[in-house]
Amino acid sequence: MNNTFGKTFSMTTFGESHGKALGCIVDGVPAGLKIDEEFIQSELDRRKPGKSKLETARKEDDKVEILSGTFEGLSTGTPIMMVIFNGNQKSRDYDNVKDLFRPGHADFTYFHKYGLRDYRGGGRSSARETAARVAAGAIAKLMLKTLGIEIVSGVSEVDGIKAKNYDFTHAKSSKLYALDKEVETAQEEAILTAKGKHDSVGGVVLTVATGVPVGLGEPIYYKLDAKLADAMMSINASKAIEIGDGIASTSLKGSQNNDGITPNGFTSNHSGGILGGISNGDDIVVKTHFKPTPSIFQAQDTVNTANEAMKFELKGRHDPCVAIRGSIVCEAMMALVLADMALLNMGTKMEHLQAIYKK
Amino acid sequence: MNNTFGKTFSMTTFGESHGKALGCIVDGVPAGLKIDEEFIQSELDRRKPGKSKLETARKEDDKVEILSGTFEGLSTGTPIMMVIFNGNQKSRDYDNVKDLFRPGHADFTYFHKYGLRDYRGGGRSSARETAARVAAGAIAKLMLKTLGIEIVSGVSEVDGIKAKNYDFTHAKSSKLYALDKEVETAQEEAILTAKGKHDSVGGVVLTVATGVPVGLGEPIYYKLDAKLADAMMSINASKAIEIGDGIASTSLKGSQNNDGITPNGFTSNHSGGILGGISNGDDIVVKTHFKPTPSIFQAQDTVNTANEAMKFELKGRHDPCVAIRGSIVCEAMMALVLADMALLNMGTKMEHLQAIYKK
Amino acid sequence: MNNTFGKTFSMTTFGESHGKALGCIVDGVPAGLKIDEEFIQSELDRRKPGKSKLETARKEDDKVEILSGTFEGLSTGTPIMMVIFNGNQKSRDYDNVKDLFRPGHADFTYFHKYGLRDYRGGGRSSARETAARVAAGAIAKLMLKTLGIEIVSGVSEVDGIKAKNYDFTHAKSSKLYALDKEVETAQEEAILTAKGKHDSVGGVVLTVATGVPVGLGEPIYYKLDAKLADAMMSINASKAIEIGDGIASTSLKGSQNNDGITPNGFTSNHSGGILGGISNGDDIVVKTHFKPTPSIFQAQDTVNTANEAMKFELKGRHDPCVAIRGSIVCEAMMALVLADMALLNMGTKMEHLQAIYKK
Amino acid sequence: MNNTFGKTFSMTTFGESHGKALGCIVDGVPAGLKIDEEFIQSELDRRKPGKSKLETARKEDDKVEILSGTFEGLSTGTPIMMVIFNGNQKSRDYDNVKDLFRPGHADFTYFHKYGLRDYRGGGRSSARETAARVAAGAIAKLMLKTLGIEIVSGVSEVDGIKAKNYDFTHAKSSKLYALDKEVETAQEEAILTAKGKHDSVGGVVLTVATGVPVGLGEPIYYKLDAKLADAMMSINASKAIEIGDGIASTSLKGSQNNDGITPNGFTSNHSGGILGGISNGDDIVVKTHFKPTPSIFQAQDTVNTANEAMKFELKGRHDPCVAIRGSIVCEAMMALVLADMALLNMGTKMEHLQAIYKK
Repeated sequence: MNNTFGKTFSMTTFGESHGKALGCIVDGVPAGLKIDEEFIQSELDRRKPGKSKLETARKEDDKVEILSGTFEGLSTGTPIMMVIFNGNQKSRDYDNVKDLFRPGHADFTYFHKYGLRDYRGGGRSSARETAARVAAGAIAKLMLKTLGIEIVSGVSEVDGIKAKNYDFTHAKSSKLYALDKEVETAQEEAILTAKGKHDSVGGVVLTVATGVPVGLGEPIYYKLDAKLADAMMSINASKAIEIGDGIASTSLKGSQNNDGITPNGFTSNHSGGILGGISNGDDIVVKTHFKPTPSIFQAQDTVNTANEAMKFELKGRHDPCVAIRGSIVCEAMMALVLADMALLNMGTKMEHLQAIYKK
Repeated sequence: MNNTFGKTFSMTTFGESHGKALGCIVDGVPAGLKIDEEFIQSELDRRKPGKSKLETARKEDDKVEILSGTFEGLSTGTPIMMVIFNGNQKSRDYDNVKDLFRPGHADFTYFHKYGLRDYRGGGRSSARETAARVAAGAIAKLMLKTLGIEIVSGVSEVDGIKAKNYDFTHAKSSKLYALDKEVETAQEEAILTAKGKHDSVGGVVLTVATGVPVGLGEPIYYKLDAKLADAMMSINASKAIEIGDGIASTSLKGSQNNDGITPNGFTSNHSGGILGGISNGDDIVVKTHFKPTPSIFQAQDTVNTANEAMKFELKGRHDPCVAIRGSIVCEAMMALVLADMALLNMGTKMEHLQAIYKK
Repeated sequence: MNNTFGKTFSMTTFGESHGKALGCIVDGVPAGLKIDEEFIQSELDRRKPGKSKLETARKEDDKVEILSGTFEGLSTGTPIMMVIFNGNQKSRDYDNVKDLFRPGHADFTYFHKYGLRDYRGGGRSSARETAARVAAGAIAKLMLKTLGIEIVSGVSEVDGIKAKNYDFTHAKSSKLYALDKEVETAQEEAILTAKGKHDSVGGVVLTVATGVPVGLGEPIYYKLDAKLADAMMSINASKAIEIGDGIASTSLKGSQNNDGITPNGFTSNHSGGILGGISNGDDIVVKTHFKPTPSIFQAQDTVNTANEAMKFELKGRHDPCVAIRGSIVCEAMMALVLADMALLNMGTKMEHLQAIYKK
Repeated sequence: MNNTFGKTFSMTTFGESHGKALGCIVDGVPAGLKIDEEFIQSELDRRKPGKSKLETARKEDDKVEILSGTFEGLSTGTPIMMVIFNGNQKSRDYDNVKDLFRPGHADFTYFHKYGLRDYRGGGRSSARETAARVAAGAIAKLMLKTLGIEIVSGVSEVDGIKAKNYDFTHAKSSKLYALDKEVETAQEEAILTAKGKHDSVGGVVLTVATGVPVGLGEPIYYKLDAKLADAMMSINASKAIEIGDGIASTSLKGSQNNDGITPNGFTSNHSGGILGGISNGDDIVVKTHFKPTPSIFQAQDTVNTANEAMKFELKGRHDPCVAIRGSIVCEAMMALVLADMALLNMGTKMEHLQAIYKK
């Protein structure tokens, strides 16, 4: 079950970049949730490529269809299966990578681990798999919304250019999903400059959940922060995860970093809303660092499957900065973690059992 | 099973800081492994507090005893149970925190999640639980060693003072587990200065595995990097995780960050030995950032369990920099992840099944 | 993940009787297995209804399509998704059961557990879900075959009429899947007589695996016999499971029931090939008892969703004896259990690790 | 995690028959449950051997000690660890079985699976492991009691002599745990006669849960009946499981076997309280068939570890009918299944989430 994420509210994904279809089974959705199909599609549309020249020009329609688990618009408590059929993919684009390993990609490791690989567009290791996560995450968001929990995100950094202020409303309408209007143009230029040089850049996504009740997260080995780290690090190209102030905390003193507690809440949120692996009622704050897209169009050194050295030049269309569309995936993963935690937390005290069973 | 870590080679821990005992059940250890009890104890001794004034002066003997799962010095394939009995703990040290929540600690969240808490020394949320991880990790190391895998670690940063060179041999004998002799004295002074001011500092641990074969890690939702992030983020006080170059990758171009491939291996290791969530044969490199110890001895604002505001001053003995002893825990967690991945990988190709079943 | 079966070689199913589609994701299939699609379809054809008047006259084409996880005819180690689209189902057949609970069916419990239900043909609780199991089981069989393991089954009892001899070859071509030609006609007549009276009968399926190596099964809580019991009891309408001599053992003395051991194997197989939850190299023998089909066409007492008493007469087409087609599902479930156990067993001794990692 | 039972309310056991200790970690116990240690001990006392000549004369004190997870008499939501230290076991009793395989025992399979075995008293495969289950089951019972659920059991059959009436109150005080006073003497004599001939007999345990709410059980692969079958079949020496009328249902017509539904409940309980894998509010009824104890004192054929034929005569003390003490283990396993199902069911409908999170 290595393609399953979550314990109670869980998602199992399938599909390859250039196979017939991809999708997921979402299991553990409580019965009686209104399944808003338009919302699910709108989430996929936010992740869809080709919306601007900052993204790959590949066409992916990403029309999602629900094949099970709902009845008369409501979840029934049975597995919700969602499928996205792949359109006519240009598999022949990949003929030139068939027998070699693209640097920075999973080609080398998949081939050696499994003894063979579906080389068309990276097969299963393609970031195309994240479309299934966004579909599942959309259902998690629908459930969380009924509990008052909302998730927002945006790009805080591109090619080392950092946002100074975070404006999630702006991010939503920005084609870069940029959090800071002030640095947005500079960030855009950095991307286009790199793209012009057949190169790529890295970026950082900030994801925040609001309205999270105290108590989500199951210590010691299903802590909220650990599962968020797990979730975000499972996204293609992510290389570092920070909770709350993260790395900045390392240089603070304890007296600066501790969040004071008052009858009305915490005086600061260095912790990112998590203490001892459990939500403390404050905003949940996570940063995900994405490396520059490994797909570049300069000549690179590699070997073929016979382990012979060769020069190689990639063809095709690729995102020059994966953090942009990655932000939608970060939201989905946070939603999935929180939905799972919300269900798990229900059994943690006798008071909850009494509320359900004694009527 | 939220106190269980790992799928096949798994550890389930129990115990509170000031309860009768703590320990773990390690399940899934292959039969026929030589269980070197002296080695296990020596690992606990490396983590044990009180070895220098850089650590808490608390006395914890941490004598580990194996109660099951071995016979005539070998693992039998049955669960290995290890227990560490707590000595006479000074529970009364904690009378003054009984009804209030220490800032930066899990007191607040445990109380609200569970409706009650064992306030003695943080109870289950105490970093004392990590002793059980070190015991389990020691068995993982014994297994990995037979496969040629070794794990080392050291402190790369303290209070913002960074190592420029990494010397793991030096770290092993340094009381700070410092990776760089050149900055070690400055790092020590930073700790002692903060301690003198009743304050604390943060730090960073670098953990590296060598000899890892290509193929460990199970995509998409049991990736090697994601599980390492999960593992490290589950350690008390950790706030950020980096794989390979981590955050530094964010500011690189793709052409700089991609590791070239040659018939003799990779030309660099920006990736930290992981591509697509699977080990590529290079060293596995992880950085774990620890916040400054929340236990400081200055007056702080907090509330009591009746949500009344109060000033509070902590008593007792605490590590001024948790990263130091944390490094031993990071090694244990990496060992547990790799041992699990080594077992999981056995079933990933038919060739492996033939090797086992066709004789 | 309550719709997932198995730990390593696992199947997650989805779909309702009268929804758009049903199917499964098979995860953990080792890479490099030849995926024989014709064989998979032939297994579904064996389970398909309408092959004789002993079965329901419902038309279900059960054409299975693989959407992911294979490449050039081989498994790739990624999830294999299989879908069966439902044809034009006569949902209106179920208008008369919309607001009431059919006795002996899951209508009552689904409605009360989930607060709502998809009443069309039993929705998720329909035995139609077992088509997905047969598809997944076919892949398990393909893997097991490469290890020399084969699974056969047949109907040993109908309406109390028991087979005296077991002929699995005959069963394969019998429209009743009958194990004993001698009693087959009597068994057929019992079914048709009951059917003529708008009633139904029970039956027993014997399932046997040959060629199973010593060592499959993971004590204490993933024993081979316990998981077979779990697997078989999860099939619709099954009410009792026997391993080996099963209930007959209860009346034997220990001296009669123990299987003697010789250098050439066991002197008898009362145990059904399992000792201490682990296969002993002998045939694995399981009996599954199916209750008479609850769908009968006589008037019955029930209540509606408003808990008002009412008489009710079922319409539609149903199997008069579910054990017949159930035998194919029993084979699939045994195959899934054995495939999972074969993978799990790979990590149980150091010798196996050496075989894989030391080359 | 093959030594773990349950998903949310889970038990992980450890320990061998003649090792230092055995016990369990119970994880997932909701916080705030009163942990009655006397009750737990009294459950172990019910299972303890040597209470009559119908049982083995072995002395096992089975004093249980809680090492973690409780505070001031209440569960804290953290893992509850319970240990039973083994007294001075006569390991030398087993010198004569060291190099051979006892027929009907797990010696053969453990040795071949793991490549070595702890031969002292069967090691891990000994039924002594079930003491840990009884301890864990006692905590499950404490939790279930607060929800109005009670579990009873008794021996319904010995050596083919069947109870005609079930009197659970009588069973509680009977040294045979006999359900029917009328046949009790005959059952006792059957046991003593077999014992006198150095032989053993089989038996059947009936286990019943009352007060179970509608809705427990998670289809399709975590059904209540399937998990009960799994649970009971995991007990040493069990060979068959029946739910409700079980095997008797096979010979009934559908019109006889269906339980009619009225506004006041079901008109009969052939189903054993489970429809579609979900509890229907009626009593949960399970029968577990135990084979005759394989430990007999007559000469038997076997082989040694070098696969040489030999005659062998067992020494030591053993239960002539394992079903007697097995009944207490059946109760524990049913309690563990129901406790797990009670927690899992909490997240199955939105109405439940609203009850917990909207206040």
